[in-house]
Amino acid sequence: MQVGKQSLEFETAPYIISSANIVGTKEGEGPLKEYFDVIGADDMFGQKTWEEAESTLQKEAFTMAVGKAGKKPEDIRYLFSGDLLGQTIATSFGLKDFSVPLFGLYGACSTCGEALSLGAMCVAAGYADCVAAMTSSHFASAEKQFRFPLEYANQRPLSATWTVTGSAAFILGKEKSKAKITGITTGVIEDYGIKDSMNMGAAMAPAARSVIRQHFLDFQRGPADYDRIITGDLGVVGQEILISLLKEDGYDISSVHRDCGIEIFDGEKQGTGAGGSGCGCSAVTLSSYYLKQMEKGEMRRILFVPTGALLSTVSFNEGMTVPGIAHAVVIEFVED
Amino acid sequence: MQVGKQSLEFETAPYIISSANIVGTKEGEGPLKEYFDVIGADDMFGQKTWEEAESTLQKEAFTMAVGKAGKKPEDIRYLFSGDLLGQTIATSFGLKDFSVPLFGLYGACSTCGEALSLGAMCVAAGYADCVAAMTSSHFASAEKQFRFPLEYANQRPLSATWTVTGSAAFILGKEKSKAKITGITTGVIEDYGIKDSMNMGAAMAPAARSVIRQHFLDFQRGPADYDRIITGDLGVVGQEILISLLKEDGYDISSVHRDCGIEIFDGEKQGTGAGGSGCGCSAVTLSSYYLKQMEKGEMRRILFVPTGALLSTVSFNEGMTVPGIAHAVVIEFVED
Repeated sequence: MQVGKQSLEFETAPYIISSANIVGTKEGEGPLKEYFDVIGADDMFGQKTWEEAESTLQKEAFTMAVGKAGKKPEDIRYLFSGDLLGQTIATSFGLKDFSVPLFGLYGACSTCGEALSLGAMCVAAGYADCVAAMTSSHFASAEKQFRFPLEYANQRPLSATWTVTGSAAFILGKEKSKAKITGITTGVIEDYGIKDSMNMGAAMAPAARSVIRQHFLDFQRGPADYDRIITGDLGVVGQEILISLLKEDGYDISSVHRDCGIEIFDGEKQGTGAGGSGCGCSAVTLSSYYLKQMEKGEMRRILFVPTGALLSTVSFNEGMTVPGIAHAVVIEFVED
Repeated sequence: MQVGKQSLEFETAPYIISSANIVGTKEGEGPLKEYFDVIGADDMFGQKTWEEAESTLQKEAFTMAVGKAGKKPEDIRYLFSGDLLGQTIATSFGLKDFSVPLFGLYGACSTCGEALSLGAMCVAAGYADCVAAMTSSHFASAEKQFRFPLEYANQRPLSATWTVTGSAAFILGKEKSKAKITGITTGVIEDYGIKDSMNMGAAMAPAARSVIRQHFLDFQRGPADYDRIITGDLGVVGQEILISLLKEDGYDISSVHRDCGIEIFDGEKQGTGAGGSGCGCSAVTLSSYYLKQMEKGEMRRILFVPTGALLSTVSFNEGMTVPGIAHAVVIEFVED
């Protein structure tokens, strides 16, 4: 059902039947280490290139999630997946052997929100009994794609984020589980003219603000209606901007706001700058930590808002700005 | 309604309310020149970079399509769009000022099929009264992305295709028009191990074969049920392979098969190798030529099958194969 300007509320809300996550060594040493399904022994995951390593993450996350749901790959009617690499090759090569119809997505680090949104729309409409929504990122493939070769050992400003090595897959369907997606608010691109690709939190905060504000308006809700409002990878710099921007709009989210980029690393001990980032950051944090809290009933309703910075090295080098986008997904606890 | 293994049939079929297209100079000198809405005076479209030129194509196509539909941008509830560039920057920068919720897509040159499929699913489910599905490509931005700088003046094998400079936008909605989308078949990735990025027709033909065969099975139809079966950009090399592969499956599509890549250029006169390619190729050919034929009632039912080659320079340089994907969309003539 269309709600307000940018939102949908699902009359028959799709369930998150299962989810699975896999991360790299650094994530496995961070605050969420006890929650992850698999922590790699090294970040190559048995492959020869970083890109193949990232593809392996998607393959493993999908295989585990399908298994946890008690399904086979052929039970999954559609895959909704994306990653950060040019031409989303981590997705293509990671998922090519499953023979499941694929909708390839690109929303930068907001892709997890986009995949969950489209997956939920698909199940709620009766187009599928079961779909998978997934994303991945890898520190080393992302550094190669967006910044400098690792061997160059460049220095990073404190506002820079650290791309998470990880992938999570979510199986959405009609079978009852402990969590369901009851609504979505799809974001528009917001461009505040920021040109610093090392400060993506600042570039994405306006998009998070815009979609959260619109979500409140569309659903006639406020911060008090959520146990947590969880952005993707704003980091400590972006978090401060988001809270301050939403205060201008009359919403104080400071007590319920969390950011996956802040949760996943211990910034001071691990030297990860402003926080974690990447398509995998919000996905593995939702899968490993927040969904588990919901399944225990410790959170009843959360707003999950992955945030993306829309740039490439080409756009950046041509002097373009870094616009942002974010998509909001309402996840609710299901009583037995 | 789910049909067979990979297909949907829409009980309330969404209409293609309008479409609009804009192309570059070379396309404007080709066989379809009299059908295009706008032919650029040069391929910069008033911009300073090829990427901005491509963004301008999306901006113009969207603006024209919205206008033709008698709508305003704010009447469009969702944008489904993508392009070939790393991190789909042509889409982000082309559409950022419209403030329309965006689902960014990547399916290589199959993206037009993916966008029409998701857009149709969205309207048919009642999630939106009106959405836009669109794609773009630009010869020069694609050469820079995938091959060599234009200044390098490299030679090309005859099997190479020529990226189309162009963009088309399709407004899908509930308002009756002369054409509607009655079904879709969503493709899986097919990888026949081809490693030649200069022969993408051969890399994509197996994916086209797979989705067309599955479409026939799912809908219990055959070539005779279609006035035209139109692939995206297989070119002359890929066309031959597709026809031959489908013959192995017991389907002879030779009399109804057309390929947008072959239609859009006069290969011999224009030196375009095996044919046109790129996200824009199938989009502008459908918008300019085939939809017009349908609106006149000269074709009653077509199967539109954009085809994509899933590679990047990174995957190619690392010795990976070139997998393909294709998505099929059934478009039918609507009686008054």
